[in-house]
Amino acid sequence: MMTVVAASDVVGVLGGMGPLATLDFMRKMLDATPAARDQEHVPVVASSIPQVPDRTAAFCGQGESPLAAMLASGRRLADAGAGLVVIPCNTAHLWFEQLQEGLGLPMLHLVDAALEEALAAAGPGARIGLLATDATLASGLYLNRPASRGVQWLQPTAAEMLEQVMPGIAAVKAGRLAEGEALLAQAARALAQRGASALVLGCTEIPLVLHAGNAPLPVIDATAALARRAVGWSLSRRRPPPPPAAP
Amino acid sequence: MMTVVAASDVVGVLGGMGPLATLDFMRKMLDATPAARDQEHVPVVASSIPQVPDRTAAFCGQGESPLAAMLASGRRLADAGAGLVVIPCNTAHLWFEQLQEGLGLPMLHLVDAALEEALAAAGPGARIGLLATDATLASGLYLNRPASRGVQWLQPTAAEMLEQVMPGIAAVKAGRLAEGEALLAQAARALAQRGASALVLGCTEIPLVLHAGNAPLPVIDATAALARRAVGWSLSRRRPPPPPAAP
Repeated sequence: MMTVVAASDVVGVLGGMGPLATLDFMRKMLDATPAARDQEHVPVVASSIPQVPDRTAAFCGQGESPLAAMLASGRRLADAGAGLVVIPCNTAHLWFEQLQEGLGLPMLHLVDAALEEALAAAGPGARIGLLATDATLASGLYLNRPASRGVQWLQPTAAEMLEQVMPGIAAVKAGRLAEGEALLAQAARALAQRGASALVLGCTEIPLVLHAGNAPLPVIDATAALARRAVGWSLSRRRPPPPPAAP
Repeated sequence: MMTVVAASDVVGVLGGMGPLATLDFMRKMLDATPAARDQEHVPVVASSIPQVPDRTAAFCGQGESPLAAMLASGRRLADAGAGLVVIPCNTAHLWFEQLQEGLGLPMLHLVDAALEEALAAAGPGARIGLLATDATLASGLYLNRPASRGVQWLQPTAAEMLEQVMPGIAAVKAGRLAEGEALLAQAARALAQRGASALVLGCTEIPLVLHAGNAPLPVIDATAALARRAVGWSLSRRRPPPPPAAP
C-alpha cells in the first residue's frame, strides 16, 4: 500500500536555533508518530541554518535583529515545498507575526502548544513554573498569550536567571550537557520549593537535559507539544490511498 | 564576529531513509563540528521525506524503484539552496550515479568515506566484518568500490542475514531498539568469532544501536565518517569574515 504525499503534507522546520534543539524536535516528531516503517513517518524539510543572530541579545538591544536571517531560512522551506512552518525555538517566537506575514505559509505557535498542555496537566489555580530565556520572560511571550489567562506563574528570580538559567542554556548550546543539566535543575528546584506544581520547559535547549526522569516536578515540554501538533497537522492532510481497482 | 554564509556552504541531507538514521547523521555532524555557539555550526538543509519506496525490495525486484522519489526529494534540497548533497542511507547509494546526474550538485559517497576510515583503522591484511542490508551486500556496493581493493571481507551467512541482520534493521526502523540491538549484536559476535578485527556498520540503522560501547569488536561507523566529511566540506567553503576596517 503506497500513500501519496501531497506537497502540502510536508512540515517545514525553521531550525538551527540551536541545531541540537532542532534535532530534539525532529526526534519528538518521530516519537509522536504511530509508524512501523519508514514510509509511515511524516514528511519533513528542515532548514537548520544556525547563522541567525542571537535572539536574546537582539531583544535586549545588544545585537542585530534575527528577522532577516529567519526569513531567508524560512524561504528555503517554502522553496522546498513545505506546507507548514514550525520553529523549535521559543525566543524566536518574538518575531512570529512578522515571519508569518513574510513567509505566507501557515504556522503553528510553540507557546500556544505548550500552554494548552500546561493547562490540561495542571488543575485550575495551580502554580506553574516557567524556565525560559531572559528575552522570553521579559517580553511576556508566555505571560501575555491569551491562553495564559488564569495561569498562576512562578518565574526564576533575576539572580537565578543570571547565575543558573542563562548559563545553563549557554552550556547546552556549547555541548556541555552535564553542566547545563546541573544549573537548570538548580533553577527547577527553586521553583518547586516556591510551590510550583508543574514546570514549563520554555526554551528548546532545556528539555535536552531536563525531563520527567530527572526533574524535581512534573514537566511540560514545549518542544514535544509543538512536535505532536506538527505531526497531527501532517497526518490530517495525508491523502488516503486510492481505492483498489475493481477485480 | 559574524561569519557570512555563502549559499554554497549549505550541506543538503537527502534523508528519511530512515528518518531516525537521518537525525543520527545530523547529530554526528554537530559532534564533528568545533563549535561553542549556535552560529559556529554548519548550515544544513534536510529533506526527510520517508515516502521513498523500500530500497532493498526494489533491488530484489520486489518493489518499485526509489529513484524518482529520491530525485524529487533531492530537488527540494537544490531548491532550498544546498551546495552539496549527502545521503545517510547506504543502500540508496545503489542509485548514487543516477542521483548525481539528475541533481547536478556535488555529492559525497558514503561508502568511500567508510572505506577510507576502515583502511586507516585496520592494518594491511586485516579482516573486516561488514554488517549491511541484503541489497548492499548482494550488489557489491562495498566490495566492488575501487577503495575496497585489498580488504579481506567477512560477511554474515545467508541464514544470519535472514534471521538476525534484516530483522534487526527492521526492528530499529520500527523503533524497537532493544530488539534490534540484540539481533545485530548477535551477528556482530559471529563475525568477531570468525576473525574480524573491525566491523563496518554499513547501514545507517545499525549505529543507532551498535557502537564502540557495546560492540564486541572495534566499529567503523559509516554514518559518522560521512558526517565528518560533510562538515569538512562546509567549513572549507566558509567565507572568512572581512578584515576589520582601518581605525
